[in-house]
Amino acid sequence: MALIVQKYGGTSMGSPERIRSVARRVAKFRAQEHQVVVVVSAMSGETNRLIALARELSSNPDPRELDVVISTGEQVTIALLALALQEIGVAAKSYTGAQVKILTDSAHTKARILSIDQAGIRADLDAGKVVIVAGFQGVDEHGAITTLGRGGSDTTGVALAAALSADECQIYTDVDGVYTTDPRIVPEARKLDTITFEEMLEMASLGSKVLQIRSVEFAGKYKVKLRVLSSFEEENEGTLITVEENKNMEHPVISGIAFNRDEAKITVLGVPDQPGIAYQILGPVAEANIDVDMIIQNVGRDGLTDFSFTVSRGDLDRTTNVLDRVKAGIGAAAIEADQSLCKVSVVGVGMHSHPGVAAKMFKTLSAEGINIRMISTSEIKISVAIEEKYLELAVRVLHKAFDLDQAR
Amino acid sequence: MALIVQKYGGTSMGSPERIRSVARRVAKFRAQEHQVVVVVSAMSGETNRLIALARELSSNPDPRELDVVISTGEQVTIALLALALQEIGVAAKSYTGAQVKILTDSAHTKARILSIDQAGIRADLDAGKVVIVAGFQGVDEHGAITTLGRGGSDTTGVALAAALSADECQIYTDVDGVYTTDPRIVPEARKLDTITFEEMLEMASLGSKVLQIRSVEFAGKYKVKLRVLSSFEEENEGTLITVEENKNMEHPVISGIAFNRDEAKITVLGVPDQPGIAYQILGPVAEANIDVDMIIQNVGRDGLTDFSFTVSRGDLDRTTNVLDRVKAGIGAAAIEADQSLCKVSVVGVGMHSHPGVAAKMFKTLSAEGINIRMISTSEIKISVAIEEKYLELAVRVLHKAFDLDQAR
Repeated sequence: MALIVQKYGGTSMGSPERIRSVARRVAKFRAQEHQVVVVVSAMSGETNRLIALARELSSNPDPRELDVVISTGEQVTIALLALALQEIGVAAKSYTGAQVKILTDSAHTKARILSIDQAGIRADLDAGKVVIVAGFQGVDEHGAITTLGRGGSDTTGVALAAALSADECQIYTDVDGVYTTDPRIVPEARKLDTITFEEMLEMASLGSKVLQIRSVEFAGKYKVKLRVLSSFEEENEGTLITVEENKNMEHPVISGIAFNRDEAKITVLGVPDQPGIAYQILGPVAEANIDVDMIIQNVGRDGLTDFSFTVSRGDLDRTTNVLDRVKAGIGAAAIEADQSLCKVSVVGVGMHSHPGVAAKMFKTLSAEGINIRMISTSEIKISVAIEEKYLELAVRVLHKAFDLDQAR
Repeated sequence: MALIVQKYGGTSMGSPERIRSVARRVAKFRAQEHQVVVVVSAMSGETNRLIALARELSSNPDPRELDVVISTGEQVTIALLALALQEIGVAAKSYTGAQVKILTDSAHTKARILSIDQAGIRADLDAGKVVIVAGFQGVDEHGAITTLGRGGSDTTGVALAAALSADECQIYTDVDGVYTTDPRIVPEARKLDTITFEEMLEMASLGSKVLQIRSVEFAGKYKVKLRVLSSFEEENEGTLITVEENKNMEHPVISGIAFNRDEAKITVLGVPDQPGIAYQILGPVAEANIDVDMIIQNVGRDGLTDFSFTVSRGDLDRTTNVLDRVKAGIGAAAIEADQSLCKVSVVGVGMHSHPGVAAKMFKTLSAEGINIRMISTSEIKISVAIEEKYLELAVRVLHKAFDLDQAR
């Protein structure tokens, strides 16, 4: 008998028929004597519908009241799943975030979980009930309803698994696991049986949007055994996200190829090549809450240099506005923006003990005539910015070069 | 400065535009320095939509989980109204039933209010905020969400007004007050400026569905000054429902004519004319939770008698089923059902000091050739069952005979 936390997203809860399908899956785990806690999202589209309704009444809705509205999405699905389970003879009980209670700070629409009261859930599990908890929501110390931000249901699942010391946290989604890269680009992409938290973080933040990053960090921190798997396939093991590097001798150097089209490059031309210039440029950008990704400072000439960095395309206009204001103060000649780039990364915990990964990556791209515009590296990934038109080609040749299409 | 509780129904909250209109009305009261507590229903149609969703997953939904689903309707509207008020510069804060907290028993889908914690509401009112409370819902001692049954938002409004010792409880609806009878039948029907609780109870239970009966009883018991008025007309005084009989010398003997088409008559033929027969017939009916309205036991002949009573038409099949089971035991010859009747009543607290009301009523109907099939009376009303085809005619001639079309 194990204690399992299962999380089902909006697509899995998208219709009465799909909710019945989730109920049948949960029932199968109960039939194996497992204790099951289920975390659910709102029906797909419902949260957006509710936000639109709130925006009809207020151009800039009070986050406290917005949370009261959007938290109803999960309040509906918890009860519908409880009804579906009861209908097939499985005892079940629903809990809103406040009823659990999942205590959060008061940062409405992006609250952080502070603690989880597990007494009620434990009692119901011990009484043989399936416990269904609303994802994405909590309650602050004043009794106000809070929400955790987009994808917050994953975080609820992992936090509950940590609080209950669950044997496993299963995240059911519309993909059947984490792949070496996007199968739509590389048909030979393989599903990974395991991946480390660190690799998953790089894969997720680079565009493989399987899991909310915060939930992966949380799972890594609290050593929750996390598994991503398909809610539509009957039998599948999905991908297990592990704390430890695979001890297997055959462990691959590279686990996957990630990519991100959402890159915009900004170049500040002709700034004085002197200490502190990076801070003078990036300080105001950070103050505007804009995340900077890759950064390059060119070699200076005649006491001047060019400074380039990338941001999300959605932040490009705000970034150039910020720089236009500080341009005169830092003595820059001009500001240039470029939206023709994308980012491709090779990710793998094995690379830190295998030199030559970068060389192999650059050589592979060079052989295809793909020019590398920027480079950034970490312990477990190497990212390059290239022209977006080469994205698919680059991902395909790198996937092959690192033997990711080979079964292991 | 007064403390006013206002309740708005589903039609008043039916769209963003209507919610904005409610916000403007509330703002006007705030501008006059009144403290305002607003109780709202779900958007019209929403509760039915949610019930249908629950029924898709369970033919006989667990009432606990059903309450979790349907209580979301009001949770959405409280926040939307708060946003609409904030948008026009009025400080406002929403409360679910659980947040208030409105403590109820655990009779899900038809819970009764046990107590209301007014501390939080008081503090917000004193801080100048409009407090918006979800109607129709509460929370039981275990923290489970409960609902009060159809029309329960009226009860929430009255209960809050009682708990807060409000100066007035205003029920905004789609009619502008209580009329002497249905204006669709008698165009000369007049709006009443005042009506007593007792009269209102008779008018409401007889089919003038302006207010939920339970809320009127509640208001009478706790002496809450209750006013029914239109949410669509800018300036209107509506109808005040008072505890005391109007002391005005001109007080009318009759306040209104009520009617009810939803009547079915059942006759148990040829039962022994002996003590206890009424209980033997009506006992099993009461046990089946069927409300009996008018009752007649005919004069016996040859030791046998006929026993007739009326029930709602929706209860007719269940009632005949119950009687078929006990028919042999009570020695009845046959059971007859008749759905061709309706009920018409004259209502007025003045009638107990004015004999002759019944005589005038019977004479008026007789003059039109309308046969009276059953009669029942109370201190403040006289009801007759007549053939349904005469309903409009009877209401019109009685309205005129008692001078209800005359301005006072």
